[in-house]
Amino acid sequence: MIRLFVSADLKAASSFPLDEKQSHYLKHVMRQNDGDDILVFNGRDGEWQGTLAITKKNVAFTAQTQTRAQVNEGLLTLLFAPIKSNHGNMTIEKASELGASAIYPIITERTVVTRVPTDRYEAIAIEAAEQCERLSVPKIHEAQKLEVLLKNWNEHKHILLCAEAGEATPIAAALASMNMPSLAVLIGPEGGFTDKEFSMLRTLPFVTPVTLGPRILRADTAAISALSIIQALKQ
Amino acid sequence: MIRLFVSADLKAASSFPLDEKQSHYLKHVMRQNDGDDILVFNGRDGEWQGTLAITKKNVAFTAQTQTRAQVNEGLLTLLFAPIKSNHGNMTIEKASELGASAIYPIITERTVVTRVPTDRYEAIAIEAAEQCERLSVPKIHEAQKLEVLLKNWNEHKHILLCAEAGEATPIAAALASMNMPSLAVLIGPEGGFTDKEFSMLRTLPFVTPVTLGPRILRADTAAISALSIIQALKQ
Repeated sequence: MIRLFVSADLKAASSFPLDEKQSHYLKHVMRQNDGDDILVFNGRDGEWQGTLAITKKNVAFTAQTQTRAQVNEGLLTLLFAPIKSNHGNMTIEKASELGASAIYPIITERTVVTRVPTDRYEAIAIEAAEQCERLSVPKIHEAQKLEVLLKNWNEHKHILLCAEAGEATPIAAALASMNMPSLAVLIGPEGGFTDKEFSMLRTLPFVTPVTLGPRILRADTAAISALSIIQALKQ
Repeated sequence: MIRLFVSADLKAASSFPLDEKQSHYLKHVMRQNDGDDILVFNGRDGEWQGTLAITKKNVAFTAQTQTRAQVNEGLLTLLFAPIKSNHGNMTIEKASELGASAIYPIITERTVVTRVPTDRYEAIAIEAAEQCERLSVPKIHEAQKLEVLLKNWNEHKHILLCAEAGEATPIAAALASMNMPSLAVLIGPEGGFTDKEFSMLRTLPFVTPVTLGPRILRADTAAISALSIIQALKQ
């Protein structure tokens, strides 16, 4: 059954028009008819089955039955450095599938990107959440410089730094010694962090350098890999 | 430094011409000069640094120093079902980065592919191995039907079946209870295995159904996720 993310509040009999893009999708892509049922979720009120009212003008949804109660899907943050403006789409899609709750694009010394497309990232995150049956959508933050992000960081949220070089703990061992309800994973850009950035990161008490294994992973693979391992070991 | 996979034997002073594609790459893409050094590996004799002799006709390599001894990179097999002819490229690339030693494309009941491009898969696996500093290249097998593969399977090689539905053990728990030097991961096609295939798989003593978490992963994400988790927990 079709599953859509909506912003409206959801409770029995609540009724609201779907936005233009969703209306187009339902009418012209998925060829839905008046009276057909779909599922919706908003990240707050669980998942609801309800009925479409399709007119020439728009498509409205009326909630009928809650199919799943809202659950806390965990706190897992991804910090990653997109290096080209079209880079990062896959990282966002996979991170959403793998349960990330927040994603921060970061600008590092080796980042040469002119514009980070956070609007597109949001659309990708929503679509991935709709398809993988999540009950929430990861929050995509505005891009910011690594040093600014770290200056304002909540020190209780531990950062696992995926390090390609230097002293680092295997990620499984690092996770076994932690009992953190809320974790973040930091992945450098292709080409890695600079020595200066690494030295700075290694001085921070809330940063633990970890390795993902003996091979050099591409940045996008490292992001997927780290999130997968954390989810598997927190199960 | 440039790293290439070669088929020739490697020992001190061994000398051989590189193939046409590699010669083109070195001369015209990477603009190498006569006397420049590169690294090569063949999956048997470790990694060797050596020197290029560039002529109009070709590029030859002479091995100088072994930079890394050959190591056993483990036995980890991926069985996956490509569903479109251009599908699978990313799965092959990431599986190579994540240390798979063998990859079997499989044809399932829901596979509608006409031709599985194993030649291209091999090229992708080699390029990924060159870039991620592996000392071997995963073997890409010819595509075969799932039932044929299982009939000829070595029963000592355990298969973790990534199951979207039905009874299954969290993958970390399944791995903790196993002591297998050699493992395989089986990922279904988009749309999943049929009920008939699932029932058949569940009767096999060398198959353990596992879950990768509470979310529904795309087939390519599931492959990357499972290989990442196995590598992290075997470290």
